[in-house]
Amino acid sequence: MKFKAPRGTSDHIPEMINNWNEVERIARETAKSFGYQEISTPIFEQTGLFKRAVGEGTDVVQKEMYNFKDLGGNELTLRPEGTAPVCRAFIEHGMHNMPYPVRLFYIEPMFRHERPQSGRMRQHHQFGVEIFGDSSPESDSEIIILALTYLKKLGLKDLKLKINSIGNKESREFFKKSFMNYFISKKNDLPEIDKKKFDINPIRILDSKEKVTKKMIIDSPKPIDFLDKESLIHWNGLQKILNSSIKKFENVTLDIDHSLVRGLDYYSKTVFEIEPNDQSEKSQSSVLSGGRYDNLVSFIGGPETPAAGFGSGIERIMLSIDDNSLNINNLTDLTVISLSDQAWIESNLLCNELRNRNLVIVNSSRDKSLKSQMRYANQIKSRFLMVVGDNEIESKKIELKKLSTGENIKIKLDAEEIFLKVRSNG
Amino acid sequence: MKFKAPRGTSDHIPEMINNWNEVERIARETAKSFGYQEISTPIFEQTGLFKRAVGEGTDVVQKEMYNFKDLGGNELTLRPEGTAPVCRAFIEHGMHNMPYPVRLFYIEPMFRHERPQSGRMRQHHQFGVEIFGDSSPESDSEIIILALTYLKKLGLKDLKLKINSIGNKESREFFKKSFMNYFISKKNDLPEIDKKKFDINPIRILDSKEKVTKKMIIDSPKPIDFLDKESLIHWNGLQKILNSSIKKFENVTLDIDHSLVRGLDYYSKTVFEIEPNDQSEKSQSSVLSGGRYDNLVSFIGGPETPAAGFGSGIERIMLSIDDNSLNINNLTDLTVISLSDQAWIESNLLCNELRNRNLVIVNSSRDKSLKSQMRYANQIKSRFLMVVGDNEIESKKIELKKLSTGENIKIKLDAEEIFLKVRSNG
Repeated sequence: MKFKAPRGTSDHIPEMINNWNEVERIARETAKSFGYQEISTPIFEQTGLFKRAVGEGTDVVQKEMYNFKDLGGNELTLRPEGTAPVCRAFIEHGMHNMPYPVRLFYIEPMFRHERPQSGRMRQHHQFGVEIFGDSSPESDSEIIILALTYLKKLGLKDLKLKINSIGNKESREFFKKSFMNYFISKKNDLPEIDKKKFDINPIRILDSKEKVTKKMIIDSPKPIDFLDKESLIHWNGLQKILNSSIKKFENVTLDIDHSLVRGLDYYSKTVFEIEPNDQSEKSQSSVLSGGRYDNLVSFIGGPETPAAGFGSGIERIMLSIDDNSLNINNLTDLTVISLSDQAWIESNLLCNELRNRNLVIVNSSRDKSLKSQMRYANQIKSRFLMVVGDNEIESKKIELKKLSTGENIKIKLDAEEIFLKVRSNG
Repeated sequence: MKFKAPRGTSDHIPEMINNWNEVERIARETAKSFGYQEISTPIFEQTGLFKRAVGEGTDVVQKEMYNFKDLGGNELTLRPEGTAPVCRAFIEHGMHNMPYPVRLFYIEPMFRHERPQSGRMRQHHQFGVEIFGDSSPESDSEIIILALTYLKKLGLKDLKLKINSIGNKESREFFKKSFMNYFISKKNDLPEIDKKKFDINPIRILDSKEKVTKKMIIDSPKPIDFLDKESLIHWNGLQKILNSSIKKFENVTLDIDHSLVRGLDYYSKTVFEIEPNDQSEKSQSSVLSGGRYDNLVSFIGGPETPAAGFGSGIERIMLSIDDNSLNINNLTDLTVISLSDQAWIESNLLCNELRNRNLVIVNSSRDKSLKSQMRYANQIKSRFLMVVGDNEIESKKIELKKLSTGENIKIKLDAEEIFLKVRSNG
């Protein structure tokens, strides 16, 4: 009997979790610096929420959701994405009565039953932001700048920002019709997978990874050609702002991508993705994506509320960043070894006083020999070591050993003196 | 159509999440100061892990687990507790080959299908620590002191530490037999609920909330009377250490509780719980509990490994602490309002420079009137306000308004100058 983490999930063990926490810290710090406030929603929601919000025809709802019934017979789903739950919470807590815009962010696990591959886990984690109650292109640009600031702080060097506009409902219908007409005569030449897309939701052909299809797409109608007046003004406004803002970031290119549509049904007007420009084998796709979703809040039962947001998978980000660019400190300051049970009790009180001064202190186990306790201090990369016996307690004097140099420092057996020595001796 | 958070779950909205994050920060800081390292395991595990580790006869496994099958037919369970997954990860990642003791902690959501009540949610969150590879009573005392340090840092004033020893497997069998013999003649007088317990796992009668049963328990055999020699030495050693250590904490009482057994099957030797002594109506039970589980790692397929740990529900802690004792800062430093689209673009660049200096800056929406933008700055409790028009950009001069006093400060329209003023003017 060997139990393993379920397929497509992984443990974050200590060696990697510090990097992980540092990415989360940077996400939180960046979102807060733009005035966003954190929200956290439950791991599961009513299944109906995702069917309604994400769309019955999407891959996510059709194939990738973890659905189950609880003991009361309620149909629940492990959250596959973050925007629908935040919108549900926005409505449930009456946040539409708060002063607009309402700026929210989250850092949460998401669940999709996909074929596991590098950077694509069945349980993955996303940092996301949402801005509610602001229809201006300035708010689109705000979340895009926030996204670029986050990625730059993480040390990502060369970034490509892909943006597009898919217009409002009506303009999207016009585009869809024209797009469908264009492909209707070519349907028989489409690969099987794209034929299916054509039948369910033709617009999704634009996501195709198939060469044949990609070639056909080049001359196909573009969403941009069908924009309504309001969407067009919004689109032009956004481009103007981005052109001036992006100059301030080193090595960020702006790429108008006419075939960029997103895999979820709720987007309108702006959609965008950011991908590393220096794509190595291991990070082949976008690390952050989002857009405007002016109809989602009302579509799931709330008042008409313009909104925009993005989500960014932390696992994918971790593949793209250089661990060394993160600032991690994971040392033990001092290991204390005691030579008798009574000495251990005395040492233990001292250890607690030192911990209250924000030092990381390991009080060595009485379960092992002196030799193996000293080896342990080296193995866990303790900066200092101190051996306490009955003599030391009686004389109130101690030798503090600096493990990197072997140097012995004689001081009083006193919390404040030890604290000062350990702190000052980097 | 109104979607709600599923029964027994709740959103953490911005007003409460800052307190929440502060509790997490204190948990992380405390565990790290004792040399513990963070680990995170997936939300779900193979169902068999919990059946094996927690025990088929326990309430948790019988009645409270969220079980489901994934699309591949695997039986999975949303994690009802944290120790079994950490032990599974400990084995899977070969941590038994690391220098002992291995000290780990986690802060994670847990899922139990219970009747929701105050402080008892179907999705709740736990801070837990585990120490592997150390059988000494010193290590039991270490996690207990860590627990007390954590609760004291949170501002909990009056604490009762309840401890007991349930011995090793054999001594527990002797105790169980004697305990069963004692109750066998009294079985008919037991309330229905405790009769059932008697049939499944008699020792769980000790958890009874029924008056009749409680009375019978007073004269029943105690686990302590059946301890094997090793468990007895361990128990005496632990009490000696705790008696000296606990004096250093204000208002902590030590209570040997002979009827303390824990609701999970894996414990051996030490078990403990901590509860607020000044119990108000809203927090009626323990806020932290744990014990030693020397047989669990081998029981689920790993090598023989002594271990101990505790878990503490964050929701229950939140009910017990005074929000004001937490140190929360949630202000916006500066709101910037622009009078034209061009001014907004210029302001936006300035905002980003200020955010890079770690200020929280809201660049006001162009979606609203000037008046409602100024009202917004007050509503979100911005410390400063700045209105940027074409004149300000041309003259490179700006008025910084301190909203608490109405004072206007004239300075250059320059990121460094604004930063210095905003930072120095608390």
